[in-house]
Amino acid sequence: MLPMQVACVLYDEFTMLDIVGPFQVLSSVADMEIVWVAEAPGPVSDHTRTGSLTASAAFDDVPEPDIVVVPGGLGTTKHLDGPVVDWVRAVHPTTTWTTSVCTGSLLLAAAGLLDGLAATCHWAALDVLGEMGAEPTLQRVVLRPGDRIATAAGVSAGIDMALELVVELRGRAAAEAAQLAIEYDPQPIIDAGSPLKAPPETVELLRSLLGSAI
Amino acid sequence: MLPMQVACVLYDEFTMLDIVGPFQVLSSVADMEIVWVAEAPGPVSDHTRTGSLTASAAFDDVPEPDIVVVPGGLGTTKHLDGPVVDWVRAVHPTTTWTTSVCTGSLLLAAAGLLDGLAATCHWAALDVLGEMGAEPTLQRVVLRPGDRIATAAGVSAGIDMALELVVELRGRAAAEAAQLAIEYDPQPIIDAGSPLKAPPETVELLRSLLGSAI
Repeated sequence: MLPMQVACVLYDEFTMLDIVGPFQVLSSVADMEIVWVAEAPGPVSDHTRTGSLTASAAFDDVPEPDIVVVPGGLGTTKHLDGPVVDWVRAVHPTTTWTTSVCTGSLLLAAAGLLDGLAATCHWAALDVLGEMGAEPTLQRVVLRPGDRIATAAGVSAGIDMALELVVELRGRAAAEAAQLAIEYDPQPIIDAGSPLKAPPETVELLRSLLGSAI
Repeated sequence: MLPMQVACVLYDEFTMLDIVGPFQVLSSVADMEIVWVAEAPGPVSDHTRTGSLTASAAFDDVPEPDIVVVPGGLGTTKHLDGPVVDWVRAVHPTTTWTTSVCTGSLLLAAAGLLDGLAATCHWAALDVLGEMGAEPTLQRVVLRPGDRIATAAGVSAGIDMALELVVELRGRAAAEAAQLAIEYDPQPIIDAGSPLKAPPETVELLRSLLGSAI
């Protein structure tokens, strides 16, 4: 099995679980080399401003990643031009999969990768995704093998996307091993994880809170 | 609502998703002050040795946290005595909830908090947990309100535990908002996330791989 390089992208005000979910799945698979990449090496602050993850490489140091994972965040729209989008646009032609979680798909769209394509993102940002040229869909994961692009819905959906990528790349048995390693057998005691399931007043409250923060 | 201080514990070779799952849930709730705490401030390497999260405070700087979350990791048994366990033992008498994810429960057990109590951890370490004096159970989340202790199964189970804590602390509506904010509506395309569901050969392979690494 040829090793694959997985580039986990970081930028100011990213959302931690967006990137750590796929990272934890993909890093549990054999022959996946993880690199944490940002504009410059060093700590990158998350959107809560309480924590930071460390980039081990600069974008310039990672010219040919096999898999790219772009997280969402708050303030994503501050990054619609600049180093993240420039790098994603530059590396996409040679990736095996270019992927995003949550509002990370706005950055793929800004890089010109989603024009006319079905794609998903955090439910509260689907309309923005549509305005940027994609065909927004309220699916949890959208895989487009022909385009080598995968997008996931909000925050926790990156775990589901990563499992689907492992099935594509390494087969079902490898994905089952990854799922068992992280004991991903979800049992939430409440069932409000989608705007179709949550109380309408909760949906509206979050839509107004998050809508202004994207 | 009185603010609560949530201490997210880091130590060498912790597992990222163990702590980032609960962090992402709890940090989305109002009036939760997050502090990332370790033996000393600064970057702390995860078990893959590719990434690091930054501790913003030393254990000595956080003497009275309201909620403690202890992640698991590989090499957890290297920490069965030392600063993590000493601090957990010292702060537990005044916490509202002392919690763990995955093999983090081995550290609670080492601190003497689980003697004779029902508790869970990563499925591959349940027998070790039993040897340390707890009553191991293959549940995803075990809440013991009378003892102010919660334990979660492997890695991803911390998300489910954190939602249950929010229900306890702030009520169902707050937990629904947190679940919707992180769009936690799990839809894995495979169903191998528990040793009761995965193929037996996968269970045995991982048991031998992980058993020697704990």
